[in-house]
Amino acid sequence: MTAAELLARLPIPIIQAPMLGASGVDMAVAVSEAGGMGALAAGGLAPEDIVQQSAEIRRRTTAPFSVNLLVVRPASPDSETVAAAMERLRPWRERLNLEPPPTPDSFAPDFDDQFAALVRAAPPVASFAFDLISGPQVAALQAVGTLVVGTATTVAEARAWAALGVDAICAQGGEAGGHRGEFLKPGPGSLIGTMALVSSLRAVIDLPVIAAGGIMDGRGVAAALALGADAAQMGTAFLLSDEATISAAWRGRIQTAGDDATVVTRAFTGRNARGIENAFIRDMRPVEDEAPAYPVQNRLTRELRAAAARAGESELLSLWAGQGVSLARAGAAGDLVSRWWDEARAASREVHARTHGRDDLRR
Amino acid sequence: MTAAELLARLPIPIIQAPMLGASGVDMAVAVSEAGGMGALAAGGLAPEDIVQQSAEIRRRTTAPFSVNLLVVRPASPDSETVAAAMERLRPWRERLNLEPPPTPDSFAPDFDDQFAALVRAAPPVASFAFDLISGPQVAALQAVGTLVVGTATTVAEARAWAALGVDAICAQGGEAGGHRGEFLKPGPGSLIGTMALVSSLRAVIDLPVIAAGGIMDGRGVAAALALGADAAQMGTAFLLSDEATISAAWRGRIQTAGDDATVVTRAFTGRNARGIENAFIRDMRPVEDEAPAYPVQNRLTRELRAAAARAGESELLSLWAGQGVSLARAGAAGDLVSRWWDEARAASREVHARTHGRDDLRR
Repeated sequence: MTAAELLARLPIPIIQAPMLGASGVDMAVAVSEAGGMGALAAGGLAPEDIVQQSAEIRRRTTAPFSVNLLVVRPASPDSETVAAAMERLRPWRERLNLEPPPTPDSFAPDFDDQFAALVRAAPPVASFAFDLISGPQVAALQAVGTLVVGTATTVAEARAWAALGVDAICAQGGEAGGHRGEFLKPGPGSLIGTMALVSSLRAVIDLPVIAAGGIMDGRGVAAALALGADAAQMGTAFLLSDEATISAAWRGRIQTAGDDATVVTRAFTGRNARGIENAFIRDMRPVEDEAPAYPVQNRLTRELRAAAARAGESELLSLWAGQGVSLARAGAAGDLVSRWWDEARAASREVHARTHGRDDLRR
Repeated sequence: MTAAELLARLPIPIIQAPMLGASGVDMAVAVSEAGGMGALAAGGLAPEDIVQQSAEIRRRTTAPFSVNLLVVRPASPDSETVAAAMERLRPWRERLNLEPPPTPDSFAPDFDDQFAALVRAAPPVASFAFDLISGPQVAALQAVGTLVVGTATTVAEARAWAALGVDAICAQGGEAGGHRGEFLKPGPGSLIGTMALVSSLRAVIDLPVIAAGGIMDGRGVAAALALGADAAQMGTAFLLSDEATISAAWRGRIQTAGDDATVVTRAFTGRNARGIENAFIRDMRPVEDEAPAYPVQNRLTRELRAAAARAGESELLSLWAGQGVSLARAGAAGDLVSRWWDEARAASREVHARTHGRDDLRR
């Protein structure tokens, strides 16, 4: 089956964004069972967990799902870099009464091991962010029947993925919460709004496009389809769902955040990511460019963020969220998908009436 | 007539963005005559020109049009501020062999005089950006039959306009080219993608919404309507039209720019604006925060930009453009409007087919 066919056959063209730290097997199953396509955020998983959790999803639903990996190269920072990064975090550790942790043995799961597990798991769809994989890796997945989706924040990144022979592009607009997938030209130039990005991509890339960023309800889904996307990917919209695995402190901030609450920061992880602005982001701003690149800073702030979550200290926590955050709604993830689809159908009828006149519809 | 009625009765719900320095009476007439709604960018006009050009549009079309003013307070910078700003521009003047100009007598047309002229002109619609006007000013326009539109980049700004009793909100998404309308919290927090902004606004503001930013073709128009906007405002999409009044150097850069070409800068005018990145923006970046606020910096760079345009030096020119710039197309503005509407109708049928099944449409 081609990616275009898979997406066209989805009862509901809504794809759950893989949200590392905010979603797990339950959300993936709920979204796929509701007629959308769930996702397993496997970027932080050990190889055996990738295989095991993929198998669990398969046991619980016959519908397609995707597994996402973050393309991260092995990091071996020198000890001065790590010491300097730890020193910058000292005030925050002290605020939480945390001892400085020992220098980690590794900063992230080994990508090649994760990738090998992914090929063994052979999910219906695999998606990648943060960087390209290789042509042979694309082919290895396709050989086991897995469709490959590359995440792009610009047309140039989409072209790079297309040149590798992937099956579809996930266009991550600037509104999106969490980490930016950018890998060619990180920064403001790669922070392109979903409306402009999807339109620009569709004009020059002959692959199915999944639109992501700022899609928070059925109107957004209909808008993504109007732009020519084959499906709409939603992440922040699921953050208040029953299946979201976020801390109470994070959830509380999501419930009260306005549309202007988020900023892009690399202070937490060494990679640009969008979240609700808080004291950590503000205070780290003057030195955030000095933070070691992902995954080093991400690993070095891990205990800090975990402790902040336990303490309910939302000012020290990474509060990933997209610009549509004020529209997040509570409920079972599957019910949200159904409701958004009803809304998308209603929006579609409205647009059709405005563009064709009310007489053109049978019902 | 209410704003909702006016927008619903437009044959084509496409509104031309007022583009100071890039559009004039001809474009406004062409767009209105084609069934959309043209705009006169009056922010730089003397009061008598506002009256005269509004009258000219009225002579040339019976269709509705709008007149836009920029809400700018009188500036009286001290001489040190002006001298420092001029000194920062010296290398650029030297590059163009320009003498330092005398300190200007005024930095912008007087807003109150412009406003009085606008009330005399009494166009069908008046729109405002950069700041709020007063409640009595809103009422004065409504008393002469003019509908009032306020530009908002966040929900908070839209609420502030709504509290003044305006008739509609123009939601300026982060993709939009040219100056940001932001006035409550300038900066990254007010750079919200169109998809997220329009969705967030529509949920809480009970006024007609005009969506702006990243809308470059009929797909974008349909997407804006799906989001619940009453009309789509397009600016960058008209920059290559026959009626655009931009320099050859600017036009040339528009023709070759990619989706990742633009950045937001205050270097040219002292107010955040989106344009194609060039040497001036890059070199001024370390000191751009020191530039005096609009309209002072805008006035002080005026001769420089005019000379750069004459010399074809696009690296010194303000190349305002939105993130969808790669999709700008040449042609008569009226033909573009018609084409976009055909595309919007086709996109609407596509979305309807995906959301309701192909059997639901008569034709």
